[in-house]
Amino acid sequence: MNFTLHPQLETDTLFIENLPLSKLLLMNDRRYPWFILVPRKFEITEVYQLVMEDQYQLLNEMNLVAKWAHKNFSADKMNIAALGNVVPQLHIHIIARHTNDFAWPKPVWGIGTKEEYSKEEGLSLIERIKQELVV
Amino acid sequence: MNFTLHPQLETDTLFIENLPLSKLLLMNDRRYPWFILVPRKFEITEVYQLVMEDQYQLLNEMNLVAKWAHKNFSADKMNIAALGNVVPQLHIHIIARHTNDFAWPKPVWGIGTKEEYSKEEGLSLIERIKQELVV
Repeated sequence: MNFTLHPQLETDTLFIENLPLSKLLLMNDRRYPWFILVPRKFEITEVYQLVMEDQYQLLNEMNLVAKWAHKNFSADKMNIAALGNVVPQLHIHIIARHTNDFAWPKPVWGIGTKEEYSKEEGLSLIERIKQELVV
Repeated sequence: MNFTLHPQLETDTLFIENLPLSKLLLMNDRRYPWFILVPRKFEITEVYQLVMEDQYQLLNEMNLVAKWAHKNFSADKMNIAALGNVVPQLHIHIIARHTNDFAWPKPVWGIGTKEEYSKEEGLSLIERIKQELVV
């Protein structure tokens, strides 16, 4: 079977780019620089279900995005998580956190209401990421 | 400098075992089977700060614990996260979640009040893990 993105992720995110293994998405919530990696593999829900080669590639892609986001947004801490209680399709959250952000020091999930990017703001951020993120 | 466990982790957890890279700890909260891996490396706060060899070993240890916990507790979903907003020392949460658990479908952090294991219950769980978790 072919990979298709879970409809909830389709709704909640903006597409940035296909990395070698994963779709790189931007969570449509301007309160945090919040990225999501979704390995393009059918019916995987846990990292350990991927073959080791894909796990190493996922780790590379997580590092790439996390390092870039940490530097680019002068993050105080990166939050990285595979939860999937609501959307079981394997997806990795990579969130640049700041000590003055909306949810700090709590995790971001379930805190307050998301604030979507304006179309211009979203596109401009996505363009910047595509130019700067060297795979 | 030598590695020492962050005092907050020391307070919140029970020691299970030293795996090749990480300390394996049990969060002292019987509401969830909740494990924590802490690589024994000084002043590391993000996974990508570890040398690649240690990252691969950490991935192995995460897989080992997550697979075992998923099977052993018949989990509906594993939650795996590196947050560190309160305790910056790198530590990986590995939590076996059930659709009828206290916080489901929310992440576990900040929900309700922890319930500590009785001494007997904690020791018995730790013994079981040490016997069954084959590194």
